[in-house]
Amino acid sequence: MQENKYDDNPFFERYAQMERSQKGLAGAGEWPAFQQLLPDFKGQDVLDLGCGYGWHCRYAAEHGARAVLGVDLSEKMLQRANEINLLPGITYRRQPIETLAFPTAKWDTVISSLAFHYVAAYDTLCQHIHHWLKPGGSLVFSVEHPAFTAQGIQDWHYDATGERRHWPVDNYFDEGKREAVFLGEKVVKYHRTLTTYLNTLLGLGFILERVVEPTPSPGLLTEFPELKHELRRPMMLLISARKSS
Amino acid sequence: MQENKYDDNPFFERYAQMERSQKGLAGAGEWPAFQQLLPDFKGQDVLDLGCGYGWHCRYAAEHGARAVLGVDLSEKMLQRANEINLLPGITYRRQPIETLAFPTAKWDTVISSLAFHYVAAYDTLCQHIHHWLKPGGSLVFSVEHPAFTAQGIQDWHYDATGERRHWPVDNYFDEGKREAVFLGEKVVKYHRTLTTYLNTLLGLGFILERVVEPTPSPGLLTEFPELKHELRRPMMLLISARKSS
Repeated sequence: MQENKYDDNPFFERYAQMERSQKGLAGAGEWPAFQQLLPDFKGQDVLDLGCGYGWHCRYAAEHGARAVLGVDLSEKMLQRANEINLLPGITYRRQPIETLAFPTAKWDTVISSLAFHYVAAYDTLCQHIHHWLKPGGSLVFSVEHPAFTAQGIQDWHYDATGERRHWPVDNYFDEGKREAVFLGEKVVKYHRTLTTYLNTLLGLGFILERVVEPTPSPGLLTEFPELKHELRRPMMLLISARKSS
Repeated sequence: MQENKYDDNPFFERYAQMERSQKGLAGAGEWPAFQQLLPDFKGQDVLDLGCGYGWHCRYAAEHGARAVLGVDLSEKMLQRANEINLLPGITYRRQPIETLAFPTAKWDTVISSLAFHYVAAYDTLCQHIHHWLKPGGSLVFSVEHPAFTAQGIQDWHYDATGERRHWPVDNYFDEGKREAVFLGEKVVKYHRTLTTYLNTLLGLGFILERVVEPTPSPGLLTEFPELKHELRRPMMLLISARKSS
């Protein structure tokens, strides 16, 4: 995540208006599914990669984590995190995920929400995380789904009347950079296949615990009927894995 | 697989003309990837669900399996299997996968190639397989990829000039029956999400070993340039899992 749109003023302001920014975890449609993958934080040392406003850090601290480090590249995001989600035991640090270094077996749990698709070298990152985790420790993360990121434009294919016709998949096995528009700004993301997401972890000796493509809850679907389109294609992939003990 | 197109005459004849029917494993693009997931068959009892012509049964027997049972619904397929792929230790049985029953810990390895997407009750089948496997035993199978089966038509979206524009994904989270045309015949398949394919196994206590979306080898891509389209979307999903010892 060398490119950091979040400190660009209009972009940051638009991001700040999103449900997930305003309401925290309750505003993130995938949160109930993500929450189910999280371990018992009691007494744990927890690292959050791409912590943003620090909602997950707060959640870990409120659920008994001993120490929580939230890392993000955006100064503005961390400023806000320090304002609204700073509890005892939480530290926020501004640094690219790619340059982090910790001793072996430093963390009980590493979490990351929608950040890894901004990282070019996923394999190196996973190696590092495996190294940083204690035996039996957990990695829980979400990324944009490979079927969502493959083509690159990240938009529906529409018919002549402007109706969403289907989700286009293309260039699936061509892993690497994609330029998408998010909140009106060009954003660079990295597409990788499901094979890469999962087998990189398995190849390092991680034990896969759950793989989940979240859907909006029935309640959300009733409240926001437009969310029915979220049932037409997978948008996110949630993965929990454990380092063998 | 209650519906059995393979004993319908014109369908069977068209199937018999396919590369994978003519050339066996060498004619199946995913074979090199599938082969890598297979265990050492030496001394093993192996069950093949949806064995077709019996090429995988033959491979297991040639690689030291003690006993191999190939099960399929099609009389014609099994007739051909008995003609061309019957080695000592191999038995072919005509029966729907859904009605099979074996004692606990009967098999060392269960394999299945492109058959589970014809089965309505995947969870029940996985429960059975887990029950039939010896502790430490393997399940290795391929299915059509969820992104491939979601929409149902199983065809590209074309532009006005007839060029393949992209692969359409729709109805992803609406699991269940799909009617596709295969070799000119209407075939009923079952779409399920990646979440279902993987978490059903994990929920039963299987350990995931590898998840692979195969691509044509560079050699095949040179020989058959049209195969480049196979790099545009995933068509198959290969999964290997182990019952804990």
